[in-house]
Amino acid sequence: MSLATATPPVDEPAQHAPYLLTPGPLTTSDTIKAAMLHDWGSWDDDFNRLTAEVRAQLLEMAGASGDAYACVPLQGSGTFAVEAALATAIDRHGKALVLANGAYGQRAAKILGYLGREHLVLDKGDYLPPRGEEVAALLDADPEITDVFLVHCETSSGILNPLAEIAEVVKARGKGLIVDAMSSFGAVPLSVEAVPFDVLVSSANKCLEGVPGFGFVILRRDLLEASAGRAHSLSLDLLEQWRYMERTGQWRFTPPTHVVAAFHTALAEHRAEGGVAGRLARYTRSRERLVAGMRELGFATLLEDRWLSPIITTFFCPGHPAFDFGRFYAELKARGFVIYPGKLTEAESFRIGCIGRLDVAVVERLLVAVGEALDALGVDDGRPAA
Amino acid sequence: MSLATATPPVDEPAQHAPYLLTPGPLTTSDTIKAAMLHDWGSWDDDFNRLTAEVRAQLLEMAGASGDAYACVPLQGSGTFAVEAALATAIDRHGKALVLANGAYGQRAAKILGYLGREHLVLDKGDYLPPRGEEVAALLDADPEITDVFLVHCETSSGILNPLAEIAEVVKARGKGLIVDAMSSFGAVPLSVEAVPFDVLVSSANKCLEGVPGFGFVILRRDLLEASAGRAHSLSLDLLEQWRYMERTGQWRFTPPTHVVAAFHTALAEHRAEGGVAGRLARYTRSRERLVAGMRELGFATLLEDRWLSPIITTFFCPGHPAFDFGRFYAELKARGFVIYPGKLTEAESFRIGCIGRLDVAVVERLLVAVGEALDALGVDDGRPAA
Ligand SMILES: Cc1ncc(COP(=O)(O)O)c(C=O)c1O
Ligand SMILES: Cc1ncc(COP(=O)(O)O)c(C=O)c1O
Repeated sequence: MSLATATPPVDEPAQHAPYLLTPGPLTTSDTIKAAMLHDWGSWDDDFNRLTAEVRAQLLEMAGASGDAYACVPLQGSGTFAVEAALATAIDRHGKALVLANGAYGQRAAKILGYLGREHLVLDKGDYLPPRGEEVAALLDADPEITDVFLVHCETSSGILNPLAEIAEVVKARGKGLIVDAMSSFGAVPLSVEAVPFDVLVSSANKCLEGVPGFGFVILRRDLLEASAGRAHSLSLDLLEQWRYMERTGQWRFTPPTHVVAAFHTALAEHRAEGGVAGRLARYTRSRERLVAGMRELGFATLLEDRWLSPIITTFFCPGHPAFDFGRFYAELKARGFVIYPGKLTEAESFRIGCIGRLDVAVVERLLVAVGEALDALGVDDGRPAA
Repeated sequence: MSLATATPPVDEPAQHAPYLLTPGPLTTSDTIKAAMLHDWGSWDDDFNRLTAEVRAQLLEMAGASGDAYACVPLQGSGTFAVEAALATAIDRHGKALVLANGAYGQRAAKILGYLGREHLVLDKGDYLPPRGEEVAALLDADPEITDVFLVHCETSSGILNPLAEIAEVVKARGKGLIVDAMSSFGAVPLSVEAVPFDVLVSSANKCLEGVPGFGFVILRRDLLEASAGRAHSLSLDLLEQWRYMERTGQWRFTPPTHVVAAFHTALAEHRAEGGVAGRLARYTRSRERLVAGMRELGFATLLEDRWLSPIITTFFCPGHPAFDFGRFYAELKARGFVIYPGKLTEAESFRIGCIGRLDVAVVERLLVAVGEALDALGVDDGRPAA
């Protein structure tokens, strides 16, 4: 992947602020944080304008301007938006197929348990992608399935799941497609024309580089309107949230005003970087350097190259007896970098994210720090034990 | 009420930032907003320490240190915390008595409808307080009632409901007491020793003067532990949220890190002001000057003095034909003050809040601005039409 978009200069975080090489909350730009230095009245027109612009810009980013889709922001973390989306999109008598290869697919299944919605899970374990033909076979075998849920980038491993091939078989069979694009939207192209999704869920603090405090759902408007009476929760009732916003321009309950203002600035910075293409280019450059550099230091990636996302990469912990993740983490943090623990059930691993306000120059410095950390631990290199 | 605590100086909001004389989001101090200029890793010990301190300080403020009570913060707006609290505290086969005299009592009843929990509502209309003897009679007439829900300060009208007398009859009958202290906690004394509540709900952006983004529930720990399997929602499952926090020190799903950091600073400023007593003193001085000044300008309050809260006060719109709330609002906003529309079902009204980073000197200037706004509208004074 090579896209000729200039990376804007990345500011140094203030002293004592390490780079967050995590899947969010992220290192955000100083201007995005500075947008929180103002108190907005949640009822006032000035704030309603921010909300309206944010919603319109998100729809545009998803190629869903016009009347066919709606964008509904929702207070809370991303999981709240996933739960609201599942409760809204799947009929109480529907049946969902959950494609799981990590924590976030499993969490969706758990939510469906709370909702009492019938579902079955295709569980591919820690890192194998669900494939189009498997999904086709399951749908053909069980015509009661009404909806398919897929995590686009499964952040647990960093895998970028094959959304397009899955969307094709789902749509060919006339089923609903719900995409958890939490950690991909804004950096991996995802538009209605290319991938005919019904529901997409994401949040403020991933590739759009805002601060955490709300998620949003972009979904077919007819589906939303048909969901009356389906919600299990007042707070998570997407249809009511949308109706109220359409009628008043306001959020139904107190919005995280400062977080919304920061997100408004984050979207402006996203456009200034060249939108999705520009952001993808920066993350991809960082990821390529990261993976090459870590391999030079002896670390192995969990995934084959074809499945690596530009979002976050899982590395195996070295088998060397002197390696200890807690100490490795502390050594890196002392050098200004916060990394993320792994989420694999079987092997010891850790993750390094490339999203947030950082670029390949930061990755270069990280690689130096990783080398130093290995030295400090007395690990000769990151190679797994033979 | 007269408490001899010094009011710390109130900073001027930056130009173009009007004072928010609303029930939240509020005008917050510059230092509270500046606490958001740092990106925290949600998994990191530095952030976990903030969370732990916030939880301990909230328990202490409620007089509930020790092991008998738990504090569970929850992402989302205050309503999310109310919903989570109701779902946790009331058994699926329980029956709730909702004491309503405004929008927030009604909203609790609506939530119980979503939850499918049996309930009855004592609806006192727009502004009359539910009284202890009425509650006693209802409880005696219907022994199936297991829990009573009361809004402490019903922000719709600004009434401070008689919590102590209601708590007494509820506790004498061994029923559960759930208090929505959203807009009172931190400024109106409310401690377990004085009022034996089972569950208290509040949020970051009211009298504790943080920015919006999460709420919290303080509840009896045995009640929380007995609630397994009761939650209707993964996102709003308080027991799971608490267990995860106790085990890991982290929030179960991505926390609004910047909002939590701001709240940590807000709690330090609350202590510096003399805690609940200091804050009550400042709000009370503001409210007394506000009501006196508005009455001098001809405005009448909805409530008799004995029911006025120090939080927010409802005034009737003048009956003068030239008075128009939209124009009045705009004139005041142009002068640097954002006020709040009324929520009465019958009479035209508006509300002015005294919470947030403002004091009696700000109220003096507001009163000048109100006089000017009346002149600009051509209303001789605020007196209702004869
Ligand atoms: C793919 C995916 N789905 C869902 C979530 C849950 O989001 P949150 O932690 O904001 O609830 C995440 C968070 O990292 C994610 O990466
Ligand atoms: C008494 C009371 N309860 C509940 C709420 C709901 O809180 P939120 O708007 O944060 O959902 C409010 C908000 O003003 C309130 O004043």
